[in-house]
Amino acid sequence: MNKKGLLVVLSGPSGCGKGTVLKELLTKKEGLFLSVSATTRRPRPGEIDGQSYYFLSRDRFLELVDNGGMLEYACYCDNYYGTPKDSVEAKRAQGIDVILEIEVQGAMQIKQKCPDAVMVFVMPPSMAELARRLVDRNTEDEETVSRRMAKAVEEMRHAKEYDYIVVNDTVENAVENLWGIVLAEKLTVRQLGGFVDEVLAQV
Amino acid sequence: MNKKGLLVVLSGPSGCGKGTVLKELLTKKEGLFLSVSATTRRPRPGEIDGQSYYFLSRDRFLELVDNGGMLEYACYCDNYYGTPKDSVEAKRAQGIDVILEIEVQGAMQIKQKCPDAVMVFVMPPSMAELARRLVDRNTEDEETVSRRMAKAVEEMRHAKEYDYIVVNDTVENAVENLWGIVLAEKLTVRQLGGFVDEVLAQV
Repeated sequence: MNKKGLLVVLSGPSGCGKGTVLKELLTKKEGLFLSVSATTRRPRPGEIDGQSYYFLSRDRFLELVDNGGMLEYACYCDNYYGTPKDSVEAKRAQGIDVILEIEVQGAMQIKQKCPDAVMVFVMPPSMAELARRLVDRNTEDEETVSRRMAKAVEEMRHAKEYDYIVVNDTVENAVENLWGIVLAEKLTVRQLGGFVDEVLAQV
Repeated sequence: MNKKGLLVVLSGPSGCGKGTVLKELLTKKEGLFLSVSATTRRPRPGEIDGQSYYFLSRDRFLELVDNGGMLEYACYCDNYYGTPKDSVEAKRAQGIDVILEIEVQGAMQIKQKCPDAVMVFVMPPSMAELARRLVDRNTEDEETVSRRMAKAVEEMRHAKEYDYIVVNDTVENAVENLWGIVLAEKLTVRQLGGFVDEVLAQV
């Protein structure tokens, strides 16, 4: 049976721990491919083209944007960052499940371009816990913390535009739940209807 | 947060091994309540009312049917069997996830009455494997086997009317996948949207 791989999009506010959850998921479970972003910024020492990022010229990047070759993109500090459609779709066409971590605005661009994307939002268990995690990171700078809290709230206001909510109370629970979502999405009739037809064709 | 429990409906042809998968799931994982059916047949020695079945008189059973109190029902060998709505809904209202195993026709009745039911169809990995499993059970009786095969095919023709397909290649995989479906369905925005609101209200 020739199934298309999933596209799993992971978002969540700074401090929710989504990076740790994703890293742990990729370590513990096999078969997920972490999407590689494209950027126009220069490679840093040790970064490898096609692994760390796809390093593109500004012209090439904008050409891809114009031709619909980016699932999403944004500009930070004069550099462009984006998700190249071709590399994601090539993996999916091979039946490989692709996952990517991205902030809310990029995620919403992807949702529009890939209606079959599996949208997952990672939530902190409470505002108090989010505040604690942000403070732990930045003990010295109250202004940064309150700016991050405000941004986190703004991002969480979009949580219900996603398909699933994963509460990161413990990394272990969050990983189990995120993996449950991946398993379940691979079992939908959209994914396995073809398998049913194949078995019935054996009669 | 006050979430309604899931209603998970499990079907699959005779020989697909759904009973073993369900038993293993209930042994390994906590928090799922196996729905108790109602019947008009007499209790057998050792059967306990409210555990094995709810034992009802014919009049009481049909009264419940008339009042919409059965999520599904059917008649076999002059006895009625059905799923009492109240006992399922009472558990769900407490936030407890309810699971039940039922043949296709009953499942379709439930789907109609509970559009939020999570419908799971267990498939054998192939027709050859299904045949092998049915033969293993009934080495002596070819007619029974071919009648069961025909019935299995008829049931599998409804598989795509379910939400999820679980392929029972090994019991271990099937249990992991079925549990993944339960986890994922507990994380949908329908289930956890209220939690997002609660966290945002803490701001």
